[in-house]
Amino acid sequence: MSVFTIGFLIFPDLTQLDFTGPLQVLSRLPASKTLIVAKSRDPVPSDCGLSLVPTATFQDCPPLDLICVPGGFGVVKAMTDPETVDFIRRRAESARYITSVCTGAFVLGAAGLLQGRRATTHWAYTDMLPLVGATHEKARVVWDGNIVTAGGVTSGIDFALRIVAELAGEEIAQSIQLGIEYDPAPPFDTGHPDRAPETVRQLVMPRYAKSREAYRAALPS
Amino acid sequence: MSVFTIGFLIFPDLTQLDFTGPLQVLSRLPASKTLIVAKSRDPVPSDCGLSLVPTATFQDCPPLDLICVPGGFGVVKAMTDPETVDFIRRRAESARYITSVCTGAFVLGAAGLLQGRRATTHWAYTDMLPLVGATHEKARVVWDGNIVTAGGVTSGIDFALRIVAELAGEEIAQSIQLGIEYDPAPPFDTGHPDRAPETVRQLVMPRYAKSREAYRAALPS
Repeated sequence: MSVFTIGFLIFPDLTQLDFTGPLQVLSRLPASKTLIVAKSRDPVPSDCGLSLVPTATFQDCPPLDLICVPGGFGVVKAMTDPETVDFIRRRAESARYITSVCTGAFVLGAAGLLQGRRATTHWAYTDMLPLVGATHEKARVVWDGNIVTAGGVTSGIDFALRIVAELAGEEIAQSIQLGIEYDPAPPFDTGHPDRAPETVRQLVMPRYAKSREAYRAALPS
Repeated sequence: MSVFTIGFLIFPDLTQLDFTGPLQVLSRLPASKTLIVAKSRDPVPSDCGLSLVPTATFQDCPPLDLICVPGGFGVVKAMTDPETVDFIRRRAESARYITSVCTGAFVLGAAGLLQGRRATTHWAYTDMLPLVGATHEKARVVWDGNIVTAGGVTSGIDFALRIVAELAGEEIAQSIQLGIEYDPAPPFDTGHPDRAPETVRQLVMPRYAKSREAYRAALPS
């Protein structure tokens, strides 16, 4: 059995949990290796003070069986950076799965990979998926052929467990879920905008205004 | 209002999601700053190929209002390292909250901080809490005075949201939960040993045998 090679793209100002959640799960996929790919091997600053060390660069990254692009405010720069978009586009040609978490979907989109596809992204940006030719499907994880997109931040954990189930079978995925004690007990039922009170939505919406504007400017429809 | 200072201890071979989950949440606590503390500023290798860059050392770390110790297989070395245990013990004297995720509880324990306390840890180690003088309370997050301990890996997200609710109020915690779209949809109901099938438990148990032995050797009752 050949080794299944997983590559996460990281870039400045990513939301680190978009990446570290699925990384924790996918790094336990049997017969796999995981690469953390960036423009250079310099530590990459995330959104919350933590810098992450890449293990491969665009130049020396081997062929990938699965590409995963996380999101975050840094997506605006990543999706308008020709070198990054070109890397994703070229690697997608030979990858078995092309995936994203959160607004990482827009990096796939900028590479032309979501044209005519059903997809999802962070809830505050789902209405903008048509800018990259995609149709929003209301689900936490959306499969359309070999393109798998997940919703905001923590949905990356659900996404990764489903990928493991697909590749290694349900029992292995279940054992990883048990290993990370993923038996969630959110203190509130406010994790989805359909159920969060209006006051709570209003607290968080301004956070996204500037990047929504930047997406519109960067992705002329 | 003074800045609330949060310090995460990191050490080689930690389970990175024990740390990155609560980091994502707590870094959004208003009027706070978050430090990532290690022995030196050299990148710290986690359990899954990702190295993490500290932002403070034991020497230059300012007083902490909240200390959080994540877990992982590296705990065996961390809890037997006098410099690490001494750092936690000294900082705990002035901290408002002393917390852990997963087997990080045993680092608190090695520092004598769980004597006579109710606590929790990763499910595969809860029976060993008496080795550090603690009583296991069956809950995903356990509060006992100013000591807050969380269960395995992903419980750190639930823990951190509850800390935010305590410090900044429920509405802020709810808005952070919405921001990280924490509306979990685990693909299986196998995240807790009470509900995972025996075959799945058997797949994962061998993973913990060696470190359970090491805990027994390091923590003579």
